[in-house]
Amino acid sequence: MIKPVTIKDLARQLNISISTVSRALRNANDINPDTKETVLKLARELEYEPNFIAQSLVKKQTRIIGVVVPLINSNYFSEALSGMTDLAIEQNYHLMICQSNERVDLENKSIRKLVACNINGLLISVSKDTKSPEVIREAQNKNIPVVMFDRIIPEVSCTKVIVDEYEGAYKAVEHLIRKGCKKIAHIGGPRDLSVSKKRKQGYLDALRDYKIEDDPKLIIHCKSFEEDASNAIRKVLAESPDAIFCINDLTAIMAIQYARKKGFSIPGDIRIVGFNNDPVSGVVQPALTTVMQPGYEVGKLAMGVLIDEIEKKTAKHKLFTLRTRLVTRLSSR
Amino acid sequence: MIKPVTIKDLARQLNISISTVSRALRNANDINPDTKETVLKLARELEYEPNFIAQSLVKKQTRIIGVVVPLINSNYFSEALSGMTDLAIEQNYHLMICQSNERVDLENKSIRKLVACNINGLLISVSKDTKSPEVIREAQNKNIPVVMFDRIIPEVSCTKVIVDEYEGAYKAVEHLIRKGCKKIAHIGGPRDLSVSKKRKQGYLDALRDYKIEDDPKLIIHCKSFEEDASNAIRKVLAESPDAIFCINDLTAIMAIQYARKKGFSIPGDIRIVGFNNDPVSGVVQPALTTVMQPGYEVGKLAMGVLIDEIEKKTAKHKLFTLRTRLVTRLSSR
Repeated sequence: MIKPVTIKDLARQLNISISTVSRALRNANDINPDTKETVLKLARELEYEPNFIAQSLVKKQTRIIGVVVPLINSNYFSEALSGMTDLAIEQNYHLMICQSNERVDLENKSIRKLVACNINGLLISVSKDTKSPEVIREAQNKNIPVVMFDRIIPEVSCTKVIVDEYEGAYKAVEHLIRKGCKKIAHIGGPRDLSVSKKRKQGYLDALRDYKIEDDPKLIIHCKSFEEDASNAIRKVLAESPDAIFCINDLTAIMAIQYARKKGFSIPGDIRIVGFNNDPVSGVVQPALTTVMQPGYEVGKLAMGVLIDEIEKKTAKHKLFTLRTRLVTRLSSR
Repeated sequence: MIKPVTIKDLARQLNISISTVSRALRNANDINPDTKETVLKLARELEYEPNFIAQSLVKKQTRIIGVVVPLINSNYFSEALSGMTDLAIEQNYHLMICQSNERVDLENKSIRKLVACNINGLLISVSKDTKSPEVIREAQNKNIPVVMFDRIIPEVSCTKVIVDEYEGAYKAVEHLIRKGCKKIAHIGGPRDLSVSKKRKQGYLDALRDYKIEDDPKLIIHCKSFEEDASNAIRKVLAESPDAIFCINDLTAIMAIQYARKKGFSIPGDIRIVGFNNDPVSGVVQPALTTVMQPGYEVGKLAMGVLIDEIEKKTAKHKLFTLRTRLVTRLSSR
C-alpha cells in the first residue's frame, strides 16, 4: 500500500469511530487502554503518518529536525550530516537540511523557514560572518531546542558540540618534533579565521613546550585557502625547513608536489603533515599524515543531545569537546 | 533590525491601514497602484518576510523548494546541490534538502514531509531501489511541480534532466583507441546498476565501432565499489592490457597505484582512465584522465525549469540530456 493510511482507514479497519481513533492517537485519557493499545498497534503496522499540516497546528509534533550548515559540499560537514542522519533515522526523526553558503542573511532565512515548518529542533553551525545570536534566539523563544556544533556563537545559551582543533594541531607538531624535526614551518590559513588561529596556537605551543624557538620566517599565512598556497610553499621552502605543518590537506598535498618537483624527497628531506583527513590524503603519494576531526561523531552526538532535549530527557546545556586523532602515514615517517 | 518585520510595521511606517498593506502584498486589484508600489518598495527595503504558516495556509506561496537526493556526501550530488542553491538564491527561492540514504521508505517520508511543509516545487533524484512513481505522483496531484534529475523513473510524467553517461564512456574509450591502445580492459561496477550498464555499453560500442573485438577476460565487474576493486585490478593486470577504463576515479586510482607497485609505468606501459572527475583525480600522480559529469549544470538547469513551472512560464515536460566532457591528464598521454 503506497497511498498514505488515514485516520479513517484505521477506524474502518477496527470498526470503531474516527473520534476514538483520534483520541487514542493523541494519547487522551478518556479512552479504554485496550482500545488505545489496539489502535496504536494497527497504526504502527500500517505505518500511519499523521497529517502534518493539521497536526503541526495542533500539537506541533512533526518530528522534523532542521539543520543549517555553512556548506554541504565539505568533507567535514557531509560527515557530520551523515552522523546526524544515521541517528535521526534510528530514532524516527526526519532531517531538513539548509545551507547558508556562508551568508548570514540566508542563514537567518533558513532558520525562519524551518521554524515556520514547525521543526521540533534545530542543529546549526553558523556562517563565518555570523556574530549575532538574535535569530537563533527567536527559535528558542518558540520553545524549539537548539544545539550548535563546530562553528558556535558563545552568546547563545544552548548545548554545543565542538572539536578540539588546537589539540589536533599540537599533536601534529609534537609528532614531528618526536621524529627529530627542529625547523618546522607552518603554512596557515586566513589570519582572522578562528580555525587558523587555533591551529597556529597549537603549533606555537608545541614548539614552546619542546623548547624550540618559533621563527616568523617559517610561518606564512595564506590570504585564502585556494590562491596563495603555492606562493606560500615557495617562500617556506626557501627557508629549508625539515618539516611543514599545513593548515589543511589540500595545502599539504600541494606542498608535497611542489617540494618533490624541486628535488626534495618526502619524508626523507622534509616531513609534511596536513589537517582534516580528506579522502584524498590516503591516496596521494606519499600518503599524507593528517589530523582527523571526528565529523561523524560530532553529528551523531549533536543529534543525540538534541533529541534528548526534544523529548525532555534533559534541559541542561552542556559543552562537549571531541578530540581529534592523528593519522600517521608515510609523509612524516 | 533583526526582529522580523511584520505587516503591522509596514502599515505603521506608511501610516496606512493593515488591510491596505495586506492587499498590496497579495497583489490585489482594489488598491491604488502608487500605494501598492510604495508598500512593495518598503517591504523589500525592510526585508519583510511573510508569516509562512499563516500564508502557506492561505496562498501556499512559501517559495520553498524541496530537494530529495540519495546521498549528500557524493561529489556529484553535492555539485548538483551547489548549482541548485546558486540559482535558488538568485531567484529568491529557498531549498530544503533531504537525503534518502538510498532507502525507498525514507525517500517517501521525505517527499510527504516536504509536501506537508507546503513546498512550491520538488526536485528529486531517486534511490537505487525506487521503482514506483506513486509518492511522487501524490505531490503532483497536489499541484506541486516536480523535476527529476540524474536518477529518474520513466513512469513519472515530468521534466527530467540527465547526463549522457553512455557517451562519456564511449568518448573515454575512443580516446584510448586513438592513443593506439588495442587491448583495453574494463573494470565495471555492480552488474545490475544502470550506471554500470551504461558505462559498459559505451565501452563495448566504442570497441565495436573501431573494429576491436571485446574480450570477456578483459571485463571484470566489481560486486561493490569499495571491496572488490583490488581483486579486479589484480585479475585484469594478469591479462597484460595496454589500457584500463575504470567505472570511477577511485577504482582508477587504486589501479594506478597497484600497477605502479608491480613495476608498470603509467601511462608508459598502461594508460588508465576513470570516471567522475572527483577532486582527487587532479591531485594523484600521475594525474588521472577522467570523464566530467556536469553536476553543477544539471542542478542549475533542473532548478531553472522547476522555477519556470512554479511561475507558470512553462507547463511542457521535457527531457534534457547534458553531455559529459573528457578531461585528459597524464595517466593516458
